[in-house]
Amino acid sequence: MEEKRMEALDYHTEERRKAEFNLEEMKIVWAGSRRIYDISDRMARLVASDPVFRKDNRTKLSRKDLFKDTLRKAAHAWKRIIELRLSEEEANMLRSYVDQPAFTDLHWGMFIPAIKGQGTNEQHEKWLPMAYKMQIIGCYAQTELGHGSNVQGLETTATFDPQTDEFDIHSPTLTSSKWWPGGLGKVSTHAVVYARLITDGQDHGVHGFIVQLRSLDDHLPLPGITVGDIGMKYGSGAYNSMDNGLLRFDHVRIPRIQMLMRVSQVTREGKFVQSDVPRQLVYGTMVYVRQTIVSDASRALARAVCIATRYSAVRRQFGSQNGAPETQVIDYKTQQSRLFPLLASAYAFRFVGEWLKWLYTDVTQRLQANDFSTLPEAHACTAGLKSMTTSVTADGIEECRKLCGGHGYLANSGLPELFAVYLPTCTYEGDNVVLLLQVARFLMKTVSQLGPGTKLVGTTAYMGRAEHLMQCRCEVEIAQDWLKPSVILEAFEARAVRMSIACAKRVGNFSNPEDGFAELSPDLLLVATAHCQLIVVSKFIEKLQQDIPGKGVKRQLEILCNVYALNLLHKHLGDFVSTGCITPKQGALANEQLRLLYSQVRPNAIALVDAFNYTDHYLGSVLGCYDGNVYQKLYQEAWKDPLNDTVVPDGYLEYIQPILKQHIRTARL
Amino acid sequence: MEEKRMEALDYHTEERRKAEFNLEEMKIVWAGSRRIYDISDRMARLVASDPVFRKDNRTKLSRKDLFKDTLRKAAHAWKRIIELRLSEEEANMLRSYVDQPAFTDLHWGMFIPAIKGQGTNEQHEKWLPMAYKMQIIGCYAQTELGHGSNVQGLETTATFDPQTDEFDIHSPTLTSSKWWPGGLGKVSTHAVVYARLITDGQDHGVHGFIVQLRSLDDHLPLPGITVGDIGMKYGSGAYNSMDNGLLRFDHVRIPRIQMLMRVSQVTREGKFVQSDVPRQLVYGTMVYVRQTIVSDASRALARAVCIATRYSAVRRQFGSQNGAPETQVIDYKTQQSRLFPLLASAYAFRFVGEWLKWLYTDVTQRLQANDFSTLPEAHACTAGLKSMTTSVTADGIEECRKLCGGHGYLANSGLPELFAVYLPTCTYEGDNVVLLLQVARFLMKTVSQLGPGTKLVGTTAYMGRAEHLMQCRCEVEIAQDWLKPSVILEAFEARAVRMSIACAKRVGNFSNPEDGFAELSPDLLLVATAHCQLIVVSKFIEKLQQDIPGKGVKRQLEILCNVYALNLLHKHLGDFVSTGCITPKQGALANEQLRLLYSQVRPNAIALVDAFNYTDHYLGSVLGCYDGNVYQKLYQEAWKDPLNDTVVPDGYLEYIQPILKQHIRTARL
Repeated sequence: MEEKRMEALDYHTEERRKAEFNLEEMKIVWAGSRRIYDISDRMARLVASDPVFRKDNRTKLSRKDLFKDTLRKAAHAWKRIIELRLSEEEANMLRSYVDQPAFTDLHWGMFIPAIKGQGTNEQHEKWLPMAYKMQIIGCYAQTELGHGSNVQGLETTATFDPQTDEFDIHSPTLTSSKWWPGGLGKVSTHAVVYARLITDGQDHGVHGFIVQLRSLDDHLPLPGITVGDIGMKYGSGAYNSMDNGLLRFDHVRIPRIQMLMRVSQVTREGKFVQSDVPRQLVYGTMVYVRQTIVSDASRALARAVCIATRYSAVRRQFGSQNGAPETQVIDYKTQQSRLFPLLASAYAFRFVGEWLKWLYTDVTQRLQANDFSTLPEAHACTAGLKSMTTSVTADGIEECRKLCGGHGYLANSGLPELFAVYLPTCTYEGDNVVLLLQVARFLMKTVSQLGPGTKLVGTTAYMGRAEHLMQCRCEVEIAQDWLKPSVILEAFEARAVRMSIACAKRVGNFSNPEDGFAELSPDLLLVATAHCQLIVVSKFIEKLQQDIPGKGVKRQLEILCNVYALNLLHKHLGDFVSTGCITPKQGALANEQLRLLYSQVRPNAIALVDAFNYTDHYLGSVLGCYDGNVYQKLYQEAWKDPLNDTVVPDGYLEYIQPILKQHIRTARL
Repeated sequence: MEEKRMEALDYHTEERRKAEFNLEEMKIVWAGSRRIYDISDRMARLVASDPVFRKDNRTKLSRKDLFKDTLRKAAHAWKRIIELRLSEEEANMLRSYVDQPAFTDLHWGMFIPAIKGQGTNEQHEKWLPMAYKMQIIGCYAQTELGHGSNVQGLETTATFDPQTDEFDIHSPTLTSSKWWPGGLGKVSTHAVVYARLITDGQDHGVHGFIVQLRSLDDHLPLPGITVGDIGMKYGSGAYNSMDNGLLRFDHVRIPRIQMLMRVSQVTREGKFVQSDVPRQLVYGTMVYVRQTIVSDASRALARAVCIATRYSAVRRQFGSQNGAPETQVIDYKTQQSRLFPLLASAYAFRFVGEWLKWLYTDVTQRLQANDFSTLPEAHACTAGLKSMTTSVTADGIEECRKLCGGHGYLANSGLPELFAVYLPTCTYEGDNVVLLLQVARFLMKTVSQLGPGTKLVGTTAYMGRAEHLMQCRCEVEIAQDWLKPSVILEAFEARAVRMSIACAKRVGNFSNPEDGFAELSPDLLLVATAHCQLIVVSKFIEKLQQDIPGKGVKRQLEILCNVYALNLLHKHLGDFVSTGCITPKQGALANEQLRLLYSQVRPNAIALVDAFNYTDHYLGSVLGCYDGNVYQKLYQEAWKDPLNDTVVPDGYLEYIQPILKQHIRTARL
């Protein structure tokens, strides 16, 4: 497919000429650095050019065939990683361009990190070398059939038996069956299993245990273990390549030393001991994982936006005058007002993800210096951004599908599968609603502590100016005033702080604040959202103040930043106006300015999505192909459907011909 | 499955006891009448008890197998319809409970109505008897690869040849290929084809022609016809049971009399003649079709809401105290604030759909009396309601899936397929955005004609009180005031009229109003939405003023009506506040009242979804089953996945074992 780029036939050539910035510069900005760009580009091409990684037939495969295809790709990827001696960074990128959920995601992304984070040095020495060489394959068995968000409610038990120096791992109820872990169903030989630790009749809460599930000789489940796949999931292709599994234990015995003991231990005598390693370390890992989720959100959203933007420039409908071609749908304001804010969001999430990377480094350094002061803020901030960016991305992918009209409904538009495969992100690593409520709880606490002496760190610093923000007046008089970063920032800060304080007061009106929090939780979600949107806006503005190569690039990013902020303002006008942060008139001016910005995005739209540097293989979309030769490709692809294998369909003789040939006498019709 | 209802084991028994109304009465209200309830109940049970109509394995079938299964079901349904001598109404209901898109939908729903509506009496006599007996099977071939919403831009040509008294049907370009028609790909023997009529070199625009596509003997395409399936669509199962097709003509000849000639004719000499049948008749049909779409929207949304509500009463998470069970998620305000407005919307759409049925009758009677005065209003109203209810339903189904947490992502939750199969409704019979713009255009026209002498009909009558509505003040002082229908109605009317007039002014500021309309189209969508929401609210209120059996039922519907309206007010607070219809304080009171209403819905929630009278077969959801025995069913279903056919997966020897057994020397990892 890559070769097509060289062909003369290119429906986007004209569009590409319109760009007002240097594409190569923007590509580097998007990637984060020249180095990352180079690796990413190399890995993407490596995957795209390898026939084993072909994925255009994926939605046509049966569950079994799709799964086998995944095993094949995982094995081949591993082979290439070793042959080419790829670094961990390169290997991760290669796997992400293979773009098919597989057990390896959990092995590298959850099993190994869990052992690293929660295991002792001795445990690292024993397990990590095997895991790194994939001599064992592991998964992360936490959620149960009846228990998801509430980890402390897990039912699986690990009871210490001092007689044998073992734990007895057991599933006491149906709802305690492990349910959902990826890689568990058919592949993993080992798992980190989360279970209630019980010593001497006492329940010490949930801890992690390394448990072997399958024989390394014949892959059969070990005695006492019931394991299988939980069945088909959303859509065709998509996550059905993954063997999300169920797991039940019937008094399975493991050595005591397979409890992950970095933070808590059970001694040979069966005594439960907390180590002096601070429990907060766990949060460091959480910050890391969620930061990668935010980066992935921008990638996924960018992919959908790229498809919708390219197709919107090819598709024409209405508006033909004097026999001229119809209008490109990308020229309609309704299309722009839905598409361009998503384009801006993709860039916004990219930059806030970059900043989260920095935050993770910062938190890690502080933790190592025993400074836990920024941890609650960092934790709330990453939780909120994970929730907000993934929700927007999921909805945004579906919106992009709608922006492709009827043809977006075809599997080969790529968007149905992208949506299906993205959705779980809204649930795993913290359900998005539960996470927003955590943010809200943190904000309510912060507000309750506001006062002259309080030190506010990081993303809550603006709350230190609450007094000013409660009474400031937006100074916008003409539409152009809305282009000033300081004006935008203050409006978003004032909205967030006013909503927080108003809600805190209402919570305080309840005799029991917990009841108040529960009762007002729908409003608290909005408070948390306002705070998170402010973070993204402010990090985008900060990015613009950094050294950006090329005036054209900087100018485009300024426009996108304004589109991002003003679209949010327009969508949440009720918040801004009812808190008195802006007047209805100022809201109307913002809307006017937003429309003008769309016209400035328009000529750059194609180049702005080219900057993502996605191969046609990775995009996996007939509508989003680089050369824009959409109709011919749709037509060619259609004939590949299995139903077109024969002219007359299977079933004609049994079910169609008899209807056509019948002689009806009795029908009332 | 139905038998399960009799079993003692029922997780919802307690919930059902809480209901404060008579369930049987509510079932009749939902169905519309005792008669319809009886038919519907009978047809649903007929389908549910027939093994041929089994659908629980649908998402696991390959495209070919799914298609063959559809042919089998269609043939079986036809057999039952004849055997049981079902009426047309009963037959339609039976097909809808079979719940699998099939060519028959288009044959009965589009092909026959097109001939009926656009054919002459002679054409009726020739074609309808064959079609009614299914001796021919037809589809509706309008959209083309490059042309959807803009019907006037279709490229297929029908050129009259006076020499032979024939039309030459031809596809001049790739983009003129017919694309999407259901039933076309593999089954239909005939089609109503829309093509540009050309006589003597003159283009008379798009008209319909009856064209035979396949031989009635061997089902092979006739000479000059290229026909096939367009390939896989969204999701698994879902619309992949339908053979949406592509079709190309290479100078295919048909007799002149196969042009549908009710409104326009071509004479033997090749003269183009308009008949005296008013063209507006077409709009009558449109009103009819869109009315059925609104009814279907309420059914689809009700189905998703039923699943999410039942599951929310079974699922528990957090909040366990002293070893008691955790809290049912339906008791969380965040869950209620997302679920109950959708429950209210399902009821709201049901009643507005009922009213649209009346409107259709009214329009038809007027048309027959040559009274076209209400047609533009009726047309705008149905277009707007089609758009609004289907968009809300599509989003609502996905929201219900999210409300089911992780397990909603499983195919057997039924929600992924329900979403996938529902989505096209947002596109066919008028793209939802295009339709809203039509409504906006109608509103702008209405506003421009406002004046002392204007007569405003039907749903625009409130605009006659524009002067009052522009300056009225909402009189809400305490939360309870928001329960008064008159207060709600005035707020919605004021909002709609103020937005319309403000937008009309802004359009008028452009030197060319067409440019203004195009430029402001994103805002015009909001204006149209405000108008449509007002219609739904007002029809719900009107319904409450009718004779409703049972005080309990009436009370519940009042609560749902208020939930529907106040939730919209909360969501669109920016509209209401920035137009000065209500104050921020009044908005906060509405929100407070809304929360109190949720507590009143809560005990009735399960009974309110029971009132839909859906069988477990029709719901097709493990999470939504009547008895609530969710976890056991999930566990049992999992083992049926093909991946669980063997303990060790296919591919183990080739792709897993070699990884586990390898000896790595070269890796950098």
